Amino acid sequence: MDLTPDDAARSVAERTRAFVRDTVLAVEREHRGSAHALPEQVRLDLQAAARQAGVFCPHLPPRWGGLGIDRRGQALVFEEAGYSLFGPLALNIAAPDEGNMHLLAAVADPEQQERYLRPLAAGLIRSCFAMTEPAPGAGSDPSALATTARPVPGGWVLNGRKWFTTGADGAAFAIVMARTSGQPGDRGGATMFLVDTDVPGLELVRTIETLDEAMVGGHGELVLQDCFVPADRVLGAVDQGFDNAQVRLAPARLTHCMRWLGLARHAQDIALDRAAGRRAFGSALADLGMIQQMLADSEIEIEASRALILRAAWELDSGGRAAQSTSVAKAFVAEAVWRIVDRSLQICGSLGVSGDLMLGRYLREVRPFRIYDGPSETHRWAISRRAVKRRVQERDAAVRGALPA
Amino acid sequence: MDLTPDDAARSVAERTRAFVRDTVLAVEREHRGSAHALPEQVRLDLQAAARQAGVFCPHLPPRWGGLGIDRRGQALVFEEAGYSLFGPLALNIAAPDEGNMHLLAAVADPEQQERYLRPLAAGLIRSCFAMTEPAPGAGSDPSALATTARPVPGGWVLNGRKWFTTGADGAAFAIVMARTSGQPGDRGGATMFLVDTDVPGLELVRTIETLDEAMVGGHGELVLQDCFVPADRVLGAVDQGFDNAQVRLAPARLTHCMRWLGLARHAQDIALDRAAGRRAFGSALADLGMIQQMLADSEIEIEASRALILRAAWELDSGGRAAQSTSVAKAFVAEAVWRIVDRSLQICGSLGVSGDLMLGRYLREVRPFRIYDGPSETHRWAISRRAVKRRVQERDAAVRGALPA
Amino acid sequence: MDLTPDDAARSVAERTRAFVRDTVLAVEREHRGSAHALPEQVRLDLQAAARQAGVFCPHLPPRWGGLGIDRRGQALVFEEAGYSLFGPLALNIAAPDEGNMHLLAAVADPEQQERYLRPLAAGLIRSCFAMTEPAPGAGSDPSALATTARPVPGGWVLNGRKWFTTGADGAAFAIVMARTSGQPGDRGGATMFLVDTDVPGLELVRTIETLDEAMVGGHGELVLQDCFVPADRVLGAVDQGFDNAQVRLAPARLTHCMRWLGLARHAQDIALDRAAGRRAFGSALADLGMIQQMLADSEIEIEASRALILRAAWELDSGGRAAQSTSVAKAFVAEAVWRIVDRSLQICGSLGVSGDLMLGRYLREVRPFRIYDGPSETHRWAISRRAVKRRVQERDAAVRGALPA
Amino acid sequence: MDLTPDDAARSVAERTRAFVRDTVLAVEREHRGSAHALPEQVRLDLQAAARQAGVFCPHLPPRWGGLGIDRRGQALVFEEAGYSLFGPLALNIAAPDEGNMHLLAAVADPEQQERYLRPLAAGLIRSCFAMTEPAPGAGSDPSALATTARPVPGGWVLNGRKWFTTGADGAAFAIVMARTSGQPGDRGGATMFLVDTDVPGLELVRTIETLDEAMVGGHGELVLQDCFVPADRVLGAVDQGFDNAQVRLAPARLTHCMRWLGLARHAQDIALDRAAGRRAFGSALADLGMIQQMLADSEIEIEASRALILRAAWELDSGGRAAQSTSVAKAFVAEAVWRIVDRSLQICGSLGVSGDLMLGRYLREVRPFRIYDGPSETHRWAISRRAVKRRVQERDAAVRGALPA
Repeated sequence: MDLTPDDAARSVAERTRAFVRDTVLAVEREHRGSAHALPEQVRLDLQAAARQAGVFCPHLPPRWGGLGIDRRGQALVFEEAGYSLFGPLALNIAAPDEGNMHLLAAVADPEQQERYLRPLAAGLIRSCFAMTEPAPGAGSDPSALATTARPVPGGWVLNGRKWFTTGADGAAFAIVMARTSGQPGDRGGATMFLVDTDVPGLELVRTIETLDEAMVGGHGELVLQDCFVPADRVLGAVDQGFDNAQVRLAPARLTHCMRWLGLARHAQDIALDRAAGRRAFGSALADLGMIQQMLADSEIEIEASRALILRAAWELDSGGRAAQSTSVAKAFVAEAVWRIVDRSLQICGSLGVSGDLMLGRYLREVRPFRIYDGPSETHRWAISRRAVKRRVQERDAAVRGALPA
Repeated sequence: MDLTPDDAARSVAERTRAFVRDTVLAVEREHRGSAHALPEQVRLDLQAAARQAGVFCPHLPPRWGGLGIDRRGQALVFEEAGYSLFGPLALNIAAPDEGNMHLLAAVADPEQQERYLRPLAAGLIRSCFAMTEPAPGAGSDPSALATTARPVPGGWVLNGRKWFTTGADGAAFAIVMARTSGQPGDRGGATMFLVDTDVPGLELVRTIETLDEAMVGGHGELVLQDCFVPADRVLGAVDQGFDNAQVRLAPARLTHCMRWLGLARHAQDIALDRAAGRRAFGSALADLGMIQQMLADSEIEIEASRALILRAAWELDSGGRAAQSTSVAKAFVAEAVWRIVDRSLQICGSLGVSGDLMLGRYLREVRPFRIYDGPSETHRWAISRRAVKRRVQERDAAVRGALPA
Repeated sequence: MDLTPDDAARSVAERTRAFVRDTVLAVEREHRGSAHALPEQVRLDLQAAARQAGVFCPHLPPRWGGLGIDRRGQALVFEEAGYSLFGPLALNIAAPDEGNMHLLAAVADPEQQERYLRPLAAGLIRSCFAMTEPAPGAGSDPSALATTARPVPGGWVLNGRKWFTTGADGAAFAIVMARTSGQPGDRGGATMFLVDTDVPGLELVRTIETLDEAMVGGHGELVLQDCFVPADRVLGAVDQGFDNAQVRLAPARLTHCMRWLGLARHAQDIALDRAAGRRAFGSALADLGMIQQMLADSEIEIEASRALILRAAWELDSGGRAAQSTSVAKAFVAEAVWRIVDRSLQICGSLGVSGDLMLGRYLREVRPFRIYDGPSETHRWAISRRAVKRRVQERDAAVRGALPA
Repeated sequence: MDLTPDDAARSVAERTRAFVRDTVLAVEREHRGSAHALPEQVRLDLQAAARQAGVFCPHLPPRWGGLGIDRRGQALVFEEAGYSLFGPLALNIAAPDEGNMHLLAAVADPEQQERYLRPLAAGLIRSCFAMTEPAPGAGSDPSALATTARPVPGGWVLNGRKWFTTGADGAAFAIVMARTSGQPGDRGGATMFLVDTDVPGLELVRTIETLDEAMVGGHGELVLQDCFVPADRVLGAVDQGFDNAQVRLAPARLTHCMRWLGLARHAQDIALDRAAGRRAFGSALADLGMIQQMLADSEIEIEASRALILRAAWELDSGGRAAQSTSVAKAFVAEAVWRIVDRSLQICGSLGVSGDLMLGRYLREVRPFRIYDGPSETHRWAISRRAVKRRVQERDAAVRGALPA
């Protein structure tokens, strides 16, 4: 039960901290934090700089060119990267690529790994994850999956519509979730497919206008129309799509928390600078009780967020599924970072809503995090169900005399 | 103590309701709710349509072409207008023009009224109100006023910098607050000037990029450099600027509440539509408890907002200054509408953060209202001070035997 | 739309204010705010004093010895009475008697009125309202009603168990809700009976220990075992029990709000006194921002509570059922008064949790109000349902071309 | 960075869990959770049982008869003990004794340790800590200390008034903080004295009636009137009282968090039992969204509390002062446990406010924790100050080129 961080992780985190402040923030500012249409060269330059700084691809094992930092270490590094909206991109740990790399490393076969994971890890290409569908399809309830994959000689034919496919514009391939058996509403019957984005039958019909704009490639709407996918592009096994999704889901929501916590800390730093430097009603802002309350609440929530993230990361590193602990972290952190950025903006007053600071942009970026990767309500539903189940089991065990309840 | 609305006001409110839904919402949608650079013709067309619909300029007395609706009646009408971001513009009751008309009607001399109020009431021109200054100038603490007006033969010479001057771009004139005596920090010594925007020495140096974009003409930054203003352009009397500001302040913050409440209701309607129509986890959203809780909280806050607005409007109509009641309404409503729009967006999920609905835009619009017209913290400070003072007076009266405490 | 209070009501309210502070608070203090076992003589003395002060029974028409104040006027008077836990008792407007008088005045036949309402209005006897049952019976869901009334020659025989029957100990009669047709879960089939508490078959098995203790007679648990009730003791008509309950329900929950708002104001006054008089960290408490924020939040919530109460009272006076507006008021006010008392206690620090002030007692008293008369969750469910229904109707009307939506 | 709990601690925690449920809860229930006047024999019996169960005095080193569990381990054990209001008493880890033992172990001289710590650790006697004074003395601002100690031949003479001295009634000795130099308001000049409670000049004038009642011996008000204390009863050094207080303060507030978290978990278990077993509106409570939301919020806050406690405990074990991390934990946990117990009570409805469950009692117990050991506002003030200071140092370092800011 030692919380002292790992030396290697600490060192990468420190380098990341310097790199983000020295190099990345200026690029973020230049593009006003908007990456929906970021020139590819900006991405490549940022990643080259990260490689130079010794912080590129910290999360993957060395065999894929990574630094081999475990989840607990990632908590440190990703938070430092997230201090800028463009930091995760620079380190090649942005969503959805980071989650996709983890998934490919875990369930892809060697050939698939060479074809897709290798260049993705190197930052040569980008990817997307096509799971969410417009209502009444798969959204907060994945079992509503409506996109279908029909077996044909040599492979499968996919039909359906996906949206909020982050990073779709410019992605080299998509991981597409489609139903290979059962009906929408069934809790099984899904399969994942690796689909090159230049194949016939897959079309990016639009990039959705969204409140957030910091994800490279935006959030795309894809139409699959009789799209043929060869048999060797099934990721993992047929009908194992929901299980695969679990492999990706818990860690992906946790790394989101890590990155957004970094941004919340940045917002808090901006507010602290303002509070230390600005005077009102004859006092420094930092001496006004209502400002102190906001600053303290944000400090408390930053610490609580970090502690919950570390707890869940440890469980993942220990081989646990961490379904409950990552849900708890996600529900708490998504709302905490929202409040933190909101308070920071409030402390900065008119300046806070102006483009002279980046807080308005940050506020826009963190808002959807309460919806993406499972809305807070869905997580609360799941958390509650598991809590009730745990308690019923405790009582049953007590009745059987095994344990006190 | 009869709360039945006035017939005339009710009738205008009903017409406004129909007009906004039939005519205004489509224009709002076409321009994505952004009016920072709205073509002048769009404004003129909307106002012509409002005139046609019999809802134009409801707030002014008939002698200025208005419908003579009192503050309580305005509560109904402005809320209906605010159902669209462009509704207030169409009815010519948008900030800052609406507040400026009220101020001019109350303190301008007849000549000034003919020159400025007449065309403003007719929608022929727009205006702005230049009071806020960058730190350390006048912001939430007006006494920090740093812009100066120096007497010269035939008038005054103004120097200073103003920002967050709403509607500056395209305004025909500005009401400029400048210090004619005393030092920044003094609670008196300010004077208001009517300044044509085309005079030498007044420059719009930029329109500030802001989170909100629904105010025509945006939020400008103005520089006054040896700007000469003739003596007859003093509004009210010299050194009475802060008193004039009081005339404008309380009603202006209340009409803001009325308008934003309309927008909150619109957001709630969007959420109700979604909840009634969408299914998740086998239930209509409207049957899910967490959704019901959000919908109910918004209903409650809409009712509380409306009740507080009506209470303060009645006090203004009764000739009261309504300093406390408008502060209470402003602090509550600004935060309530923020929560209401935020909940509506949450209920709509991914769709809510997308441009397919207007909720992301609405969220951006209502955020600054917690800062503009006095940040919530400043209002709370004032509310608390008045409460303590009232209680001390009650106790003093009790000690003197006058009243029980 | 005039909010000026009625002269008669204002005058009674002012007298009530003086009476409560001069006479009632000392009695409350002497008994530590606990009335579960208050000597009958204390009640009679308080009511005699109220009669003397001209504030007794303000809510009933003169024919029942009352002052004929309408609901809007009651909002003023009841709030002043509620400034002390014992004020409502003194004025004979405490729950459940106040609601029972209203019900009897509305639906009892003349003979029943003479027998039950007359002495109740005069304060000669007390009453109780036996509706709530232990799980799985009637609680937040009244349709679960399990107590039965079986017709027998000359009347009915009642069987069942009631609890949280406020005021049971010492009550002269109970209004008992029992099922005369249908099954638990059915939305109809209930009847109200006037049952003298000294009849065979009705037993008060215990007075429940509760967090609150300010209701005279406490909260009783009653058992009805083959309890015979004559036919002429049916209140209203057979099988009309749920309709009768509606007559009582909405006003009763609103008068609760009025009374508790008075207590919240008292708590706020205690906090204001403390803030004005106490120093910490070199400042008066009232000059510390975090204290100001708490005081201001309480001011805001007191105003919002009062405005919502007035709104609903007006609807009742206008003959409306006020189902939605009283639910909205109840849900908001119950939580607001809880927060207000909690803040006041926090401002007073250690003193606040000590018996040297009454705030700990007040906190205990207001807590159950979030559960009694419908838990906040049940009200939110109902509010949400009505909002969805209203919106669907608006849209349907729009589709039919009748109205814009 | 390994969060796996220590084997020894885990084993004691498991035994504590069983012991509390098998033995302690029944005693708590019998005495309705009130310990202000608990018979001494009950305490002795509980402690004998704890010794029997192998869980007595887990926090002290073996030389004082303890189990030598470090702070991180205590987080597990104390939480299990806190599952019952009487658990900490049974294990001899209740406030204020637990904090006093820690203080004596750290700063008392060997003779003092034998005289005071030895019997205290064995549960033979109880103690109290007399620091807080009525206004305007030492409260949330310790520097306001007004009690004086005047040097006389052979010792000191103490004069002053202390209150909220927990455990005073029945304590064998008090640790009294008195001013040996300077004036109220000075940040130094305090000394701690070990005072036997049976000496002349020390009088327990009353036990204060408080909302909470679970502390054995209650909260006493002590008067020191020319109370002579021998020179060898100075604890630590003269004028080092505030430094000594720091030794006690941070750990003491953290162990409070651990214990109260246990009680919050118990409240949550009661709510989970209720939700799993009770039906309303045709559903199990556990299937209703608003109930799920409350249960989930409590789960989240339990996890966040535990994570913050563990974080601070690790810092203490590592030799840090943990001023910020224990303040963060205290501010968060005190409010979280309050909300958790409040939600549990709400979920249980009428039953929750009744004495049939212990939730009303638990609610009363946790309320003062937001005030005792520093009100939330004082902690927020301190947290904010440290955050601003940290940020200013970061920026200064950045300006000097040392680090990025």
